Amino acid sequence: MLKIALLGCGRIGKMHAATIDRAPNATLAIVFDPIADAAKQVAAQFKCPVAATAEDAIDQADAVLIATSTPTHADLIEKAIAAGKAVFCEKPIDLSLERVLACRRAIAGSKLPIQIGFNRRFDPGHRAARDAARAGDIGDIQQVIITSRDPGFASRDYIRASGGILRDMTIHDFDLARYMLAEEPVEVFATGSAIIDPTLATEFGDVDSVMVVMKTASGKLCSITNSRVATYGYDQRVELLGAKGMVISGNRRPHELQRFGGESTGGGEPYLNFFIERYTEAFAAGLESFIKSAIAGSATEADFDDGVKALALAEAAVVSLRENRTVGVSEVLK
Amino acid sequence: MLKIALLGCGRIGKMHAATIDRAPNATLAIVFDPIADAAKQVAAQFKCPVAATAEDAIDQADAVLIATSTPTHADLIEKAIAAGKAVFCEKPIDLSLERVLACRRAIAGSKLPIQIGFNRRFDPGHRAARDAARAGDIGDIQQVIITSRDPGFASRDYIRASGGILRDMTIHDFDLARYMLAEEPVEVFATGSAIIDPTLATEFGDVDSVMVVMKTASGKLCSITNSRVATYGYDQRVELLGAKGMVISGNRRPHELQRFGGESTGGGEPYLNFFIERYTEAFAAGLESFIKSAIAGSATEADFDDGVKALALAEAAVVSLRENRTVGVSEVLK
Amino acid sequence: MLKIALLGCGRIGKMHAATIDRAPNATLAIVFDPIADAAKQVAAQFKCPVAATAEDAIDQADAVLIATSTPTHADLIEKAIAAGKAVFCEKPIDLSLERVLACRRAIAGSKLPIQIGFNRRFDPGHRAARDAARAGDIGDIQQVIITSRDPGFASRDYIRASGGILRDMTIHDFDLARYMLAEEPVEVFATGSAIIDPTLATEFGDVDSVMVVMKTASGKLCSITNSRVATYGYDQRVELLGAKGMVISGNRRPHELQRFGGESTGGGEPYLNFFIERYTEAFAAGLESFIKSAIAGSATEADFDDGVKALALAEAAVVSLRENRTVGVSEVLK
Amino acid sequence: MLKIALLGCGRIGKMHAATIDRAPNATLAIVFDPIADAAKQVAAQFKCPVAATAEDAIDQADAVLIATSTPTHADLIEKAIAAGKAVFCEKPIDLSLERVLACRRAIAGSKLPIQIGFNRRFDPGHRAARDAARAGDIGDIQQVIITSRDPGFASRDYIRASGGILRDMTIHDFDLARYMLAEEPVEVFATGSAIIDPTLATEFGDVDSVMVVMKTASGKLCSITNSRVATYGYDQRVELLGAKGMVISGNRRPHELQRFGGESTGGGEPYLNFFIERYTEAFAAGLESFIKSAIAGSATEADFDDGVKALALAEAAVVSLRENRTVGVSEVLK
Repeated sequence: MLKIALLGCGRIGKMHAATIDRAPNATLAIVFDPIADAAKQVAAQFKCPVAATAEDAIDQADAVLIATSTPTHADLIEKAIAAGKAVFCEKPIDLSLERVLACRRAIAGSKLPIQIGFNRRFDPGHRAARDAARAGDIGDIQQVIITSRDPGFASRDYIRASGGILRDMTIHDFDLARYMLAEEPVEVFATGSAIIDPTLATEFGDVDSVMVVMKTASGKLCSITNSRVATYGYDQRVELLGAKGMVISGNRRPHELQRFGGESTGGGEPYLNFFIERYTEAFAAGLESFIKSAIAGSATEADFDDGVKALALAEAAVVSLRENRTVGVSEVLK
Repeated sequence: MLKIALLGCGRIGKMHAATIDRAPNATLAIVFDPIADAAKQVAAQFKCPVAATAEDAIDQADAVLIATSTPTHADLIEKAIAAGKAVFCEKPIDLSLERVLACRRAIAGSKLPIQIGFNRRFDPGHRAARDAARAGDIGDIQQVIITSRDPGFASRDYIRASGGILRDMTIHDFDLARYMLAEEPVEVFATGSAIIDPTLATEFGDVDSVMVVMKTASGKLCSITNSRVATYGYDQRVELLGAKGMVISGNRRPHELQRFGGESTGGGEPYLNFFIERYTEAFAAGLESFIKSAIAGSATEADFDDGVKALALAEAAVVSLRENRTVGVSEVLK
Repeated sequence: MLKIALLGCGRIGKMHAATIDRAPNATLAIVFDPIADAAKQVAAQFKCPVAATAEDAIDQADAVLIATSTPTHADLIEKAIAAGKAVFCEKPIDLSLERVLACRRAIAGSKLPIQIGFNRRFDPGHRAARDAARAGDIGDIQQVIITSRDPGFASRDYIRASGGILRDMTIHDFDLARYMLAEEPVEVFATGSAIIDPTLATEFGDVDSVMVVMKTASGKLCSITNSRVATYGYDQRVELLGAKGMVISGNRRPHELQRFGGESTGGGEPYLNFFIERYTEAFAAGLESFIKSAIAGSATEADFDDGVKALALAEAAVVSLRENRTVGVSEVLK
Repeated sequence: MLKIALLGCGRIGKMHAATIDRAPNATLAIVFDPIADAAKQVAAQFKCPVAATAEDAIDQADAVLIATSTPTHADLIEKAIAAGKAVFCEKPIDLSLERVLACRRAIAGSKLPIQIGFNRRFDPGHRAARDAARAGDIGDIQQVIITSRDPGFASRDYIRASGGILRDMTIHDFDLARYMLAEEPVEVFATGSAIIDPTLATEFGDVDSVMVVMKTASGKLCSITNSRVATYGYDQRVELLGAKGMVISGNRRPHELQRFGGESTGGGEPYLNFFIERYTEAFAAGLESFIKSAIAGSATEADFDDGVKALALAEAAVVSLRENRTVGVSEVLK
């Protein structure tokens, strides 16, 4: 029975707590949140104690789940690893690649399982696409096309602290691209515009619409399309073109009702909205996979290095967007 | 070059004239219509003479295409066969099974190709379903489910002369059922109601909504669902369930635009409306098949006997609907 | 906090236990099963006591969930109601309409909530279809078409005790038909054959393939198609045709991967297989609805009378199949 | 009755001849092909004379349809315009932007209708997407995503003379992008690789897989994905994301058969293969539109300037691919 300490009791923290509660091989040992009331509420619901500090929580568990705000992630990873605990940390490790690399040096040598919260790797559809590719069903992969659009803007405060769309939103797609390509991109081109809300550009120097193209050493191509707003719902698609065929992991609806009228035939429900709903199974499967790794002391399915590499792609894209040129990944990650 | 005489220059006659005009191995030799202007118009468009009588038209051709009003079909078939011509006749042969059987006796012994206008057999989708079944792709057929709904009511006059929905509309489905089952139904149950327009019942003793169930000697089941009005368009589906799988020949849209909004995702265009549009390829393929048979003097893909048997099923259904009981096909066709 | 006694700890009982365990307003108070080990296992998993008898279990709870074998249902309902408890009973109440009517007399006068386990009413897709119809989105309903096919045969023993396909499998469709039609069928026609496994006919007098047609007083039509075996998976569809449009509640896949190759484009995963997987949300929603009714002492969404009427339709269908004729529902339910 | 001279009697020329033959307001007046037998064959089929030279053909018609090899296009346009004839010219005008601009100067001042063979603008699905956008159904356009993949390699000789994939294949997508965006792209980024057939790179300096990203002045983004080989068929999709919704013009199958088995559910037929089949309606509609313009002396729906601008985008993409950098359209088209 793996005893897990939950650090951070916000929306995602609560979701993870419920998954741990249902897991037959793990238990929620203790929770911590800088906002005491948030911690108390989760503790009451899942009947576990509240820790006074993050360090206390870490001490009293076998593994640590970090769901606090991004700037605290790297510190907490270092503390948990120093304390000999397995770590599940929500993405991203940090908005600064430098800080992430410092964290990597700090924990170098540790064999403890670390998993980064790249939930989409565990989505049944996306994973089936990857599995089909690995099984050779579509031959060698030539192109990966990822579409990821949010249903609507996050709050102004969220966006201000997000590090920009490439580090906050596209980061998932950079990870998914690596997962699908099974080969490292070496070049990144990114462009975008603040066409939905021009004040994003003037206030934050950010954009709301993004297109990224990447290439691997062997010539595999990858396209990523993002938007902060898709009025028709959370749009999450992955397309893999191979030498022998294609697979597409498409959008998911809450049920399969289709409507037929004089204006339109076969229209379905709006898509599952938003990531908590769309990726429910993915979040659960990701955490279950981590629990297994933590118990076995084995490698995770989305490790620290995956976190580093996704962020390096984001960093390269940031430079590309700013300088309007192709950026080699080796420019940002030596 | 097969010289074809067209009898009947209405909507369907014109459509057939255009098909003949495009055919590399046939030519529109002469046309006739009791309404002289209708004949003249088609003759002008396709540059061929107008016949003074149906008999004259028959005399000057190798084959005869009968697209006149239903009550004239059987007479014209008899005349054309007597004159030694191959015959393509629009469905139904006649609304009276008795008259059809008399016609059969009248032409008995002739080896001339006769084809009845059961266009749906030639629809690419329906035919692919049949071919998949014949090829064994879905194993032995166990169930056939046919949905056929018109987009809207025909005119009052049309309905009055139609012989009722079972003889006019379901006749196509009876033929399609036989084509798909590859075995004769032996029992028919039909029920229906005038739920869309109750005056159909009071004025004509007819219904607008129909469900038919049939069974073959070996236990294959077939369901037919009809409606005179489907506000979302002309609905034409065939489903075959076999021991090893299922195929469905679905509806066809004019193009593949899908719309995605906050209320509905993936809705397509309204269906092709109506039979001329939906079955364009089927009408052409059917006539082309007839032209080949007429030239070769060989059997057609929808022969006189198919016309008899479809009408016998309609007749059994009429009795079933009236008497609210299962009717053996042998009761109406000895 | 509603205390629920679970009677019957088999496959469905276990599933209900898990739902109760997750419910915020109910608790699994005690369990009973004639096979002591089955009860012990569920009790251990959900940390509750085992009752020595069904009566003991009933006594120690506010509500009773009956998931024992069918022949015990009516007795247990009577006992639970006599003891003043709300009741959730798996379908069917009994295979004998006579016994069900006796049960109805025995509990007459009780206002205690009783819910029958017609899970499909709670399926999100089917319910959305019903809601669309109730909201007037498709106008007045004219036709209901239900397709229900199992992925494969149940065990020989199961079938022997099932009361025949019409009482065991079609019973769900009879209930769904009533739910969708919002009007009572007055006439039933059923036909079928043992075309998949002819020994069903010779050994049990049963069939494996069924088509049923029903009609309401106002002329609404309903078609039900069943098969004991659909090699492509558990096929569960409901189609509603109304005066203003159509809705179809379609099949559900585990995820939305589509495959594209030279032989086939857009093929999806096999369907969710079998009812536990396909109707997971429906089972949970049904039980949650019951818990609310039990707490409030209010009417349920699938009550005893619904159980009676579905069985009456099954009974009428049994007579129809045997005598090959239309049967009035009033013949079997005076 | 518009008399049309056909120059070039290859595959596309023959297709256009058949369209002219069916048009009620045009006639095939004369044909020419440098290969005399090719011209004779078309002349025989459509019963028209063969011209000794292109100039003779031009002289004897009201309008000229140029379907000869690409290097002859610009010369023939100049001759036809000089002779006062309306012109329909297959794409591209020339592989050299310089030559195209010279041609533009040569015909400057002429008001004669000229249409370039950008058939995809006339595809019913693509056009419905454009129309939906123009009608405001999806709000202001933010993103255009075009997927265009050929089913298989053209011949080595074809590729050698093609001017490279960007000028030969992507040229259609550049035109389609402009048509959909309704605003000129100002920046182009292109990348690619010869991942399917590496000898394309070594022999021709060409690639077989391409991703292009373009941006307009107002910040609209456009992505184009190409492949010379898609084993699952000719893949032609256009997706428009707007402020109020999305439309997708998807692929088209020959019919709507779906197959359901234990491995796959709902798979459809392979896509229509290749452009002659997929764009049959588009080719016909494009030519019909030209005939109307030629008769009325009015502007065409895909004019000379459209040909110039699509080629300029291709040219910018060629530079981008070669120099691995973003290229302003103004660099290539002053």
